[in-house]
Amino acid sequence: MANLELIKGIAKPSPTRIVLLVIDGLGGLPHPQTGKTELETAHTPNLDQLVTKGVCGLSDLVSPGITPGSGPGHLALFGYDPVRFTIGRGVLEALGTDFDLHQEDVAARGNFCTVDEKGIVTDRRAGRISTEKCTELCQLLDGLVIGEVKILVRPVKEHRFIAVFRGEGLTADISDSDPQQAGVAPQTVTALEPQADKVANVANQFIAQAKAILAEHYPTNMILLRGFSKYPCFPTMSEVYKLKPAAIAGYPMYRGLAKLVGMEVLETGTSIEDEFKTLKQNYSNYDFFFLHVKETDSAGEDGDFDRKVRIIEEVDKVLPILTSLEPDVIVVTGDHSTPALLKGHSWHPVPILLYSKWCRPDRVGEFSESACVSGGLGRFPAIQVMPLAMANALKLKKFGA
Amino acid sequence: MANLELIKGIAKPSPTRIVLLVIDGLGGLPHPQTGKTELETAHTPNLDQLVTKGVCGLSDLVSPGITPGSGPGHLALFGYDPVRFTIGRGVLEALGTDFDLHQEDVAARGNFCTVDEKGIVTDRRAGRISTEKCTELCQLLDGLVIGEVKILVRPVKEHRFIAVFRGEGLTADISDSDPQQAGVAPQTVTALEPQADKVANVANQFIAQAKAILAEHYPTNMILLRGFSKYPCFPTMSEVYKLKPAAIAGYPMYRGLAKLVGMEVLETGTSIEDEFKTLKQNYSNYDFFFLHVKETDSAGEDGDFDRKVRIIEEVDKVLPILTSLEPDVIVVTGDHSTPALLKGHSWHPVPILLYSKWCRPDRVGEFSESACVSGGLGRFPAIQVMPLAMANALKLKKFGA
Repeated sequence: MANLELIKGIAKPSPTRIVLLVIDGLGGLPHPQTGKTELETAHTPNLDQLVTKGVCGLSDLVSPGITPGSGPGHLALFGYDPVRFTIGRGVLEALGTDFDLHQEDVAARGNFCTVDEKGIVTDRRAGRISTEKCTELCQLLDGLVIGEVKILVRPVKEHRFIAVFRGEGLTADISDSDPQQAGVAPQTVTALEPQADKVANVANQFIAQAKAILAEHYPTNMILLRGFSKYPCFPTMSEVYKLKPAAIAGYPMYRGLAKLVGMEVLETGTSIEDEFKTLKQNYSNYDFFFLHVKETDSAGEDGDFDRKVRIIEEVDKVLPILTSLEPDVIVVTGDHSTPALLKGHSWHPVPILLYSKWCRPDRVGEFSESACVSGGLGRFPAIQVMPLAMANALKLKKFGA
Repeated sequence: MANLELIKGIAKPSPTRIVLLVIDGLGGLPHPQTGKTELETAHTPNLDQLVTKGVCGLSDLVSPGITPGSGPGHLALFGYDPVRFTIGRGVLEALGTDFDLHQEDVAARGNFCTVDEKGIVTDRRAGRISTEKCTELCQLLDGLVIGEVKILVRPVKEHRFIAVFRGEGLTADISDSDPQQAGVAPQTVTALEPQADKVANVANQFIAQAKAILAEHYPTNMILLRGFSKYPCFPTMSEVYKLKPAAIAGYPMYRGLAKLVGMEVLETGTSIEDEFKTLKQNYSNYDFFFLHVKETDSAGEDGDFDRKVRIIEEVDKVLPILTSLEPDVIVVTGDHSTPALLKGHSWHPVPILLYSKWCRPDRVGEFSESACVSGGLGRFPAIQVMPLAMANALKLKKFGA
């Protein structure tokens, strides 16, 4: 909390504007044939021009060696220490579906799975059923009422769903039913503190009813629940930074993360250009914008080096929509690296570019991992991105006299 | 405290000597016409020569984005975490006047202000009266005794003064009377813990008497008090580092900060050269010297780029007085940046140069912000300057077996 408390004590409102452009999974690894990463391969004249006026560096989202999930990566960029500010698995999954989670709800991540006649789990993912099949099955389970608790069930993707327990006075301190391995039976949900008895009983009854309902739906004849959790109560960005923040993101997860820290989520379209246009349309109404580009990460996850390169070039092409608004501070970075070679998130520090009138430019001439090594920002933890952006927007008072 | 405890456990006395030269507000921003900062513009052959034998870097006094006041900036350079070791506003103001603050005193920062006939503050600074006027008014208020508490009042500058409450068993946990805005009445001072009732009552009576005394002195017809605080009890540099430290500073604030960590304050003259000569005269009597140059910061605060350049050149010119003493370790840095373009302290990391026989020189060839980006020290928190200096002076034992 120290970081936020310190900033909260010195933040002041001002008419300046900050745009934080997060290119998801931006950092990469060099292609074996060219020795160049995705970002280094991409032709990015607009980013490179911004670099010559800005200051660069490499940022660790959590800490060196730690591969961040999307939640911790973004919380760090918003200035919230991702080791202290944690989000339960159930809630994170719900955020990823645009589900309207209430403060009192208890959310769990669910799997449709396969059990044998003895009740032993034989496949935790029921052969990764289709999302369509998952949607059908969720409809069978949705809306059950046990005691005075209503259970809402929504599909996520493939075998994954969320189960949300809605009722009064529910706490989330209960154990998982998911044993996290095949070959054993699902576990009985137990209360981890006395007040949680009620929700543990409801969860066990729900699982029993689900089992009965799914009995004839082999291989999806059982469910596993884990990560029971409630919506966390984080200080908002308005409270901490005295900002009026808005989020522009095409994917539910990132809208959810933005809401969690009190950003207003703006309606936007499905393309990268749509998002940039949304920024332009709403530019006068907010003083902080989080603009999220997802497709770079998806390409990296798919191991598609060339597609990731093309998407970076696409971002570069629409960048003038942003720069022509002349924000006082522009930050361009990622929430983690997703090298196509690793087909997944990685621990590598992420290139970051900060532009402002007051940034003290360095000698970096292009936006790339290699060049950012010599940047004036050095290598630093991502929770310092917001203080730096705030300082450059002249939105922080002096600390101590 | 962790940093200090660790160092305390491994510090050992040795015959080597360390000189820490603090050029106040050293860091700057590039001049729009030349693209060079104050330090980069200055002709500094002696500093540049030291750089070729030393190791450089950029240091964050508090953390990236945070603009340090003089107190936090210097505490960090002395190795004291400025977020943990805080100095009350009243005490800091007293330190800035060479006032002989006792351990039991409660000090407050005061403003002469203007109130209307209803008692509403119309100008918190009474039109920024002259220091001479302030001195006259302080004499009217100085020496009042309320209960058994004597109130000492001393001018600082313009409308600012200090009020020091001297008596037995006083605590400082009381609220400000200064509402920090015009258009409202001064606030009643209240105790923030039961033991503070006494001092709160005394403060309120003092304010009432001051109001009566000043009634005919419009526009300076009232006072505002804030930052009630006692002299903090910090571990001394002798305890932590096993050093015999001395301070050479022309300005009271820096002598006060040095005293706070147990340095002996040496008599010196008013010019930069005087300070360097004081170093030479006292060189054999101490093993650590804090030498403070103030004028760079003043020039930066005045927005006078050229004057700041000239003062840096003046420091460079007298540097041989220091280097000819052949200290084992020389550190040259600032307590924060004060870019002339911003006319005030800023958050930009400060260039630092460390020379010792054992420093492992880097390839930096000139003392400048741009060159220090590529220095061997990298970018690092200023509380690590003292451990680095101690290590280079071979005054630290191995940590762990």
